[in-house]
Amino acid sequence: MRIIDQIREMRCWSEAGRRESNHIVLVPTMGFLHEGHLSLVREGRKRGDRLVVSVFVNPTQFALNEDYTAYPRDLERDRGLLEKEGVDVLFHPPVEKMFPKGSQTTVEVERLSPLLCGAFRLGHFRGVATVVLKLFNIVRPHVAIFGSKDYQQLQIIRRMVEDLNFDVEVVGSPIVRGKDGLAMSSRNAYLSQEERQAALSLSRSLRKAESLVRQGERESGRIIHAVRAEIEKGPLARVEYVSLCHPASLEKVEKIHDEALLALAVWIGKARLIDNTILKA
Amino acid sequence: MRIIDQIREMRCWSEAGRRESNHIVLVPTMGFLHEGHLSLVREGRKRGDRLVVSVFVNPTQFALNEDYTAYPRDLERDRGLLEKEGVDVLFHPPVEKMFPKGSQTTVEVERLSPLLCGAFRLGHFRGVATVVLKLFNIVRPHVAIFGSKDYQQLQIIRRMVEDLNFDVEVVGSPIVRGKDGLAMSSRNAYLSQEERQAALSLSRSLRKAESLVRQGERESGRIIHAVRAEIEKGPLARVEYVSLCHPASLEKVEKIHDEALLALAVWIGKARLIDNTILKA
Repeated sequence: MRIIDQIREMRCWSEAGRRESNHIVLVPTMGFLHEGHLSLVREGRKRGDRLVVSVFVNPTQFALNEDYTAYPRDLERDRGLLEKEGVDVLFHPPVEKMFPKGSQTTVEVERLSPLLCGAFRLGHFRGVATVVLKLFNIVRPHVAIFGSKDYQQLQIIRRMVEDLNFDVEVVGSPIVRGKDGLAMSSRNAYLSQEERQAALSLSRSLRKAESLVRQGERESGRIIHAVRAEIEKGPLARVEYVSLCHPASLEKVEKIHDEALLALAVWIGKARLIDNTILKA
Repeated sequence: MRIIDQIREMRCWSEAGRRESNHIVLVPTMGFLHEGHLSLVREGRKRGDRLVVSVFVNPTQFALNEDYTAYPRDLERDRGLLEKEGVDVLFHPPVEKMFPKGSQTTVEVERLSPLLCGAFRLGHFRGVATVVLKLFNIVRPHVAIFGSKDYQQLQIIRRMVEDLNFDVEVVGSPIVRGKDGLAMSSRNAYLSQEERQAALSLSRSLRKAESLVRQGERESGRIIHAVRAEIEKGPLARVEYVSLCHPASLEKVEKIHDEALLALAVWIGKARLIDNTILKA
């Protein structure tokens, strides 16, 4: 596995690969890899013949009060994991090369970004869209793989790619969960044992909602109420939002007609956790 | 000359050219071509072996109160002119394909855009940056040529290309003027004979400033005063702004140290005209 930290070198590697008609796959990550990331990597392996994984903790997607400095990092461990998966390139550019002084151009997916998580994390999706666009221009992948836990992010990237005519196939990969049901997240590292136990209410509440829908419930208000109640049973959880919305526009729905996204964000201690599921009527 | 109005066809043409190692040059225009555009086309001819000229009146760079519908168009004439210049492709996509319903992603060069013209044309440079980025992704040029009359636009595109890691060489081409000194602009078509005469005060005022600087003047305030006075001599001109600023950051300067951009916008009747020059101390 080659480790590249120079933007120019990454670009040359990709251009050479394209000239040899390689199909290049990119899995963008912020590192501190877990099984969720590795499932993206394995999906990527299937989708092309050259696989690049970027590890870059993007400062522009953290608000000032957020956990940019605390965000867990372990490049050596990431490197070992990616090596084992047969990744071709680990791209790990330094922050000051990605966002040099004077850098001021941003990308905004205007209607999708302020919804759901965007209402609480100001500027977050602007930072995400901007860095992903930059990675697309540097790595020039044919395919890019994103996890579905970050469902809004996935929709925003899809929209950006379409709106800005990027020639990249965006693939969404299913949420990977621990045996206890907790969705994999690098931020799970923040949880104490007790908090991890409390965090299980997130996935439990989604299963609860699915069960209600199977029983015929269609009213968003009642489903959201039940989901909140499930989470708020425990004393350690603080709900940020629970929302039922259209799976593409992310606009709120009053009732489930065909299918709807149930998305939620919950604070457990200092970890802000998100989870979601598609409810099918 | 091939005329392409399908985004997909344009993309395929460019990809095929790249595979054959052609050096592709793009000259983005809004059509109604004049000698200024043709000088960009000739510059483009020298810079590569495949030359694409786009003709697209971009609605997103016009504010609601501006002249989008009135903007002059004459595709047949443009086509004839480009054919004569040996252009390879005239790319002329329909508006509804460039900005389909649901399209919502924008690009903002945050500090450069609100200055100068951007202070009067809200959202203008967001529209410009977004459409140019789209054209870059569709045409995938190695080189793109822009005129220096739209000096702020040129700086914004340069900044965007650098910030977003586009692998495109941005070339600025000098202002082309009529024999009477008036900078070429499609909007000169709005001028009556009398107004055109009045519009000569723009370039005259720039020459006046250059002469003051040659005589040793360095104070922005005095130079701007003299420029305004020259323009306001005539009754038909209404100054929107006259500004002396840093040629790269576009921030106002109080004094000319090394060199400075003198930029101005003036209304003559219903034509909003811009012009500029670099003053060298």
